[in-house]
Amino acid sequence: MKGKLWPRIVAAMLGGLLIGAAHADIPTVPNELYEALKLDRAKVTPKELHEALVKRYKDPAQGAGRGTLAQYWEPIPYGIYLDPATFYKSPTTNKEVASRKECVECHTDESPVWVQAWKRSSHANLDKVRNLKPGEPTFYKKAKLEEIEKNLRSMGRLAEGENLKEVGCIDCHVDIGAKKKADHTKDIRMPTADVCGTCHLAEFAERESERDTMIWPHDQWPDGRPSHALDYKANVETTVWAAMPQREVAEGCSMCHTNQNKCDSCHTRHEFSAAESRRPEACATCHSGVDHNNWEAYSMSKHGKIVGMLGNQWNWEAPLKDAYAVGGQSAPTCAGCHMEYEGEYSHNMVRKIRWANYPFVPGIAENIKSEWSEKRLDSWVVTCTQCHSERFARSYLDLMDKGTLEGLAKYQEANAVVHQLYKEGLLTGQKTNRPAPPAPEKEGYAYTLPNCSGRKATALQPSN
Amino acid sequence: MKGKLWPRIVAAMLGGLLIGAAHADIPTVPNELYEALKLDRAKVTPKELHEALVKRYKDPAQGAGRGTLAQYWEPIPYGIYLDPATFYKSPTTNKEVASRKECVECHTDESPVWVQAWKRSSHANLDKVRNLKPGEPTFYKKAKLEEIEKNLRSMGRLAEGENLKEVGCIDCHVDIGAKKKADHTKDIRMPTADVCGTCHLAEFAERESERDTMIWPHDQWPDGRPSHALDYKANVETTVWAAMPQREVAEGCSMCHTNQNKCDSCHTRHEFSAAESRRPEACATCHSGVDHNNWEAYSMSKHGKIVGMLGNQWNWEAPLKDAYAVGGQSAPTCAGCHMEYEGEYSHNMVRKIRWANYPFVPGIAENIKSEWSEKRLDSWVVTCTQCHSERFARSYLDLMDKGTLEGLAKYQEANAVVHQLYKEGLLTGQKTNRPAPPAPEKEGYAYTLPNCSGRKATALQPSN
Amino acid sequence: MKGKLWPRIVAAMLGGLLIGAAHADIPTVPNELYEALKLDRAKVTPKELHEALVKRYKDPAQGAGRGTLAQYWEPIPYGIYLDPATFYKSPTTNKEVASRKECVECHTDESPVWVQAWKRSSHANLDKVRNLKPGEPTFYKKAKLEEIEKNLRSMGRLAEGENLKEVGCIDCHVDIGAKKKADHTKDIRMPTADVCGTCHLAEFAERESERDTMIWPHDQWPDGRPSHALDYKANVETTVWAAMPQREVAEGCSMCHTNQNKCDSCHTRHEFSAAESRRPEACATCHSGVDHNNWEAYSMSKHGKIVGMLGNQWNWEAPLKDAYAVGGQSAPTCAGCHMEYEGEYSHNMVRKIRWANYPFVPGIAENIKSEWSEKRLDSWVVTCTQCHSERFARSYLDLMDKGTLEGLAKYQEANAVVHQLYKEGLLTGQKTNRPAPPAPEKEGYAYTLPNCSGRKATALQPSN
Repeated sequence: MKGKLWPRIVAAMLGGLLIGAAHADIPTVPNELYEALKLDRAKVTPKELHEALVKRYKDPAQGAGRGTLAQYWEPIPYGIYLDPATFYKSPTTNKEVASRKECVECHTDESPVWVQAWKRSSHANLDKVRNLKPGEPTFYKKAKLEEIEKNLRSMGRLAEGENLKEVGCIDCHVDIGAKKKADHTKDIRMPTADVCGTCHLAEFAERESERDTMIWPHDQWPDGRPSHALDYKANVETTVWAAMPQREVAEGCSMCHTNQNKCDSCHTRHEFSAAESRRPEACATCHSGVDHNNWEAYSMSKHGKIVGMLGNQWNWEAPLKDAYAVGGQSAPTCAGCHMEYEGEYSHNMVRKIRWANYPFVPGIAENIKSEWSEKRLDSWVVTCTQCHSERFARSYLDLMDKGTLEGLAKYQEANAVVHQLYKEGLLTGQKTNRPAPPAPEKEGYAYTLPNCSGRKATALQPSN
Repeated sequence: MKGKLWPRIVAAMLGGLLIGAAHADIPTVPNELYEALKLDRAKVTPKELHEALVKRYKDPAQGAGRGTLAQYWEPIPYGIYLDPATFYKSPTTNKEVASRKECVECHTDESPVWVQAWKRSSHANLDKVRNLKPGEPTFYKKAKLEEIEKNLRSMGRLAEGENLKEVGCIDCHVDIGAKKKADHTKDIRMPTADVCGTCHLAEFAERESERDTMIWPHDQWPDGRPSHALDYKANVETTVWAAMPQREVAEGCSMCHTNQNKCDSCHTRHEFSAAESRRPEACATCHSGVDHNNWEAYSMSKHGKIVGMLGNQWNWEAPLKDAYAVGGQSAPTCAGCHMEYEGEYSHNMVRKIRWANYPFVPGIAENIKSEWSEKRLDSWVVTCTQCHSERFARSYLDLMDKGTLEGLAKYQEANAVVHQLYKEGLLTGQKTNRPAPPAPEKEGYAYTLPNCSGRKATALQPSN
Repeated sequence: MKGKLWPRIVAAMLGGLLIGAAHADIPTVPNELYEALKLDRAKVTPKELHEALVKRYKDPAQGAGRGTLAQYWEPIPYGIYLDPATFYKSPTTNKEVASRKECVECHTDESPVWVQAWKRSSHANLDKVRNLKPGEPTFYKKAKLEEIEKNLRSMGRLAEGENLKEVGCIDCHVDIGAKKKADHTKDIRMPTADVCGTCHLAEFAERESERDTMIWPHDQWPDGRPSHALDYKANVETTVWAAMPQREVAEGCSMCHTNQNKCDSCHTRHEFSAAESRRPEACATCHSGVDHNNWEAYSMSKHGKIVGMLGNQWNWEAPLKDAYAVGGQSAPTCAGCHMEYEGEYSHNMVRKIRWANYPFVPGIAENIKSEWSEKRLDSWVVTCTQCHSERFARSYLDLMDKGTLEGLAKYQEANAVVHQLYKEGLLTGQKTNRPAPPAPEKEGYAYTLPNCSGRKATALQPSN
């Protein structure tokens, strides 16, 4: 599979050289995305790709915004930061009209740690990036910057031959390349993923391709889910959250389910350090807790413990592909395995998904030996054999599959008992005390599961 | 508010320069303390301030020692280290009589890690402190040392013009500046907070000011509580702990509730590193667990995870006020936010307390929108706006308040059900199996809550 | 006690010098092992010691292999890595026949991280070890290498005067010092502890001495248990695991219970870094979780938190005996205290065991004040007084003993209630729903406890 990529890469490079034209045949973006957007990957320009991506990204019919249960999601003040595209308004209390330079000056006093973090960022040090030498772990950033400039030229945001001087407050919070002063009361925006994706088009397209590659063989989940690309939609479509009168508690789920909307859950503002986001702790704030205890499992594993012991000796500035050989890494991270697919790294993290965190979702367990699933298992073996033999990898993955099925069977056995008790009215206080749930939740044995997915887990209802 | 401090600071500095006399108008100590101790902050000397503080600190009527339930707290051998002022006696098995130098020599063999740690401490390296240059992160220690010497001169422990040579075993464990040999069987002491406070007068006074600033509008908690300054009192006055026949288990709470008595819970002996105590883990050994899971909440938050990822790259030697700009810190720590008040840092950690960790304590929730509480919320906004906009800070704090109230309402609903079951004798085995609790605990639905506070949580008794 | 060792060490060194002959009077190996193996420690050669050790190690009657419940332990594919001596077969899919050099070359592509890790190891850098200078923290490795070469000469694996050039893939996975090409389908092995012990004879002998020193006064546990030396036996002899139809879940316990079989649980392949294995996280992957939550207790303690805060500043390359003085360590680690015995460090970790993690195992609590136990307590005091006074150490250990007894009493009180309910058939659904457990587990109130020990915890059956 890896082999199939190279002709495309070479062709793309030659294409770029020969005609000098911008193109957006991004090797790490799967065909499925180009097909879904009806784009010819050999010919599409960065501008065209971005426009097509943004059109879908902003389309309420395709997952943007408040969703079909919007009437139940009474906005809370903090919500403007969770879905800025829907809720954010420029501040009215601050009347300042400020230039690019004045933003920095004033916020050095007003919110100094913003400015300190930004000053450490690549955004504020583009010349350092340009001067990187081959052999330095971050040398890849030089090519990345050139790619970004090509994107901006294609979109008419940089003139031919013009270089990007810096990325400052005003570029993200007002307009990329803004020349005019900005009025706080009218011009300030909270950057959404499409804004980041203007420059970081490859990463945006990779992430958006999750919609096109997380397609289940029997609709176990809706198309494109679960994924980061549609995680806000998953949240707002969950009836049990929508139904809760305790709006602040419900929005506790939204706190993490914002990767669809913005990029700073992993790339903490305002340094946006890739080195930081490669660390497993970057994933932990969301991927933890009783309903998806990935961090707990990982951090107590040998893999996680080695990162805990030795991680501070490694060079996290090395890109994921060089993490072991150049970064000195000796154990895998969340990003290292989940962003990898057949030897390539991208922001699509769902191409090897088989269990999707919730084995009890109907159809998941039944699917685990399907051809669809076995193909994904094979891709996992590619991942694991960086460090393990194929026999080790396959026997371990087999252990995990079977152990999961065994746990699921025990769960279903217990669940059937409880369901029967429910049907016979024998649960404590069931007949007299249990209030009907508020709409849109419906009465019944199983409410929609709090699995952050919006999926009805009918496995909970064996005889309904 | 910040503005109000400066005239005082300038006046204090001028005063010191002009009359050359020792004074103890410590800018970081609130007026409330001077008023409570009936001291004129413009005129009081370090000696007078220390004496006034120690008088209150050692007064059983004001919280020192075994408390009103002493008869129930059967001492255990280890208890001499938890409340040394009450229980510690010099060892009888060691008959050595040793000089300042001999202490170090002998303990290099007897308990080598004590000596190794001390040798790394500022205590053992005062000349290094004196030679610090402006621009070094720990330069503030030079001024601190001068302040300490001024304190010691005021108290007659250093002659005019005399400098402190070192702080060794004998200074803390026998007498500050001890010239004579010390007899282990008679002279050895465990240093209590007032001993540390002889040199570190500002820190001691700041800490003691918690008694004067943690005053609740409707006596929700006793004056000065909860706080580090009275945490041992809170412990020994808790009837349920006093009542336990399992004395070692009860003293499990005392293990943390010793900040009133001594300083080494945060400043681990014998290096007493301020850099270490600034780290959030320094707070974690006590502020964790089911009854006050602050560490669990913090360490899994984005704030905590950034410290986990990047903390080892920061310079923790920088004082808290320089943590971001000089230390390179990019996320807040426990100390950074809780020791801050209106832009100043001190050992008083209760001036922004509003919820006090236990929302169900009667009167806490009702108070959360009071003028008293709103003023403290405003102080939190000052803290948060180092890194966030005011709108972000206020909407987030609002989210937290409302979420807490929603959780509390759910708790109260459940509690009312259980209470009714209790009243009707329907709890499992309630009528026949439940023994009367040992004195001083009293029978009833709610025993005194294990909230380490000694407060009767009558919220648990909705209809009593 | 420490005194008694020195004459032996000196004699051993002189012996080595005078007669130039290989000997295996290893100071850190207790007499009990030599006696159990009927070896004269003054005369035994490395070859003889290794042979005697291996004979016992591989003897099914003395704990090797599948044990007495083998018929129930249906092998799973991954099991070949858990007990390689019993289950591992060379791979059949890979037909390569490779030389020492070709192993490395081919696996640089096939499983690159193996090779990268190995290249960082001492195994791949023996010349660096030989060139270590006195004063370097790892200088002890030079003597260790010489000792290893002496062992290999005694066993005829190195010629007189010949030095070890490297330890490569082929040495561990085919044969130490292999000169011929190796056929994957026939020659590949997974190294077991005795393979590692060929070179690392002292460490292997120390570890195996756990069998001879973990002898309980009243057979509370079988001889030599609990220990790393017999932890696989403990696992396979546990009836409740043997009985489980869910084989992958049962083998979840085996995942850790493999220290008997191989060394890489602590010394992660393929760097086998001693520095890494000294860190407390190396113990955590196994010593954690509800049934032995040692990591949870340690990592939240002051000891553990200091390691968390400061550990990355210490030099973990220093051997345990130098950890404080040379490594700069300021708090104890698992290894630092549990591998120490009377001032010496070894791979026998059970010589101070008194509670053995499970206070409820019959006879443990009753034994805690016995002469046997008090002697071990005295050895703990030697450990603790590196950093604490004897009075502190004894009072703290007393607190822990009494607190444990108090907790145990509460547990037994609750257990008696549940047992009585069981006898009267009052447990929920007991009479109709509870299936007979599969063989070899037997019906009754208490199944064999899931304490990973194979011990019947009859304490659970107060009136049986």
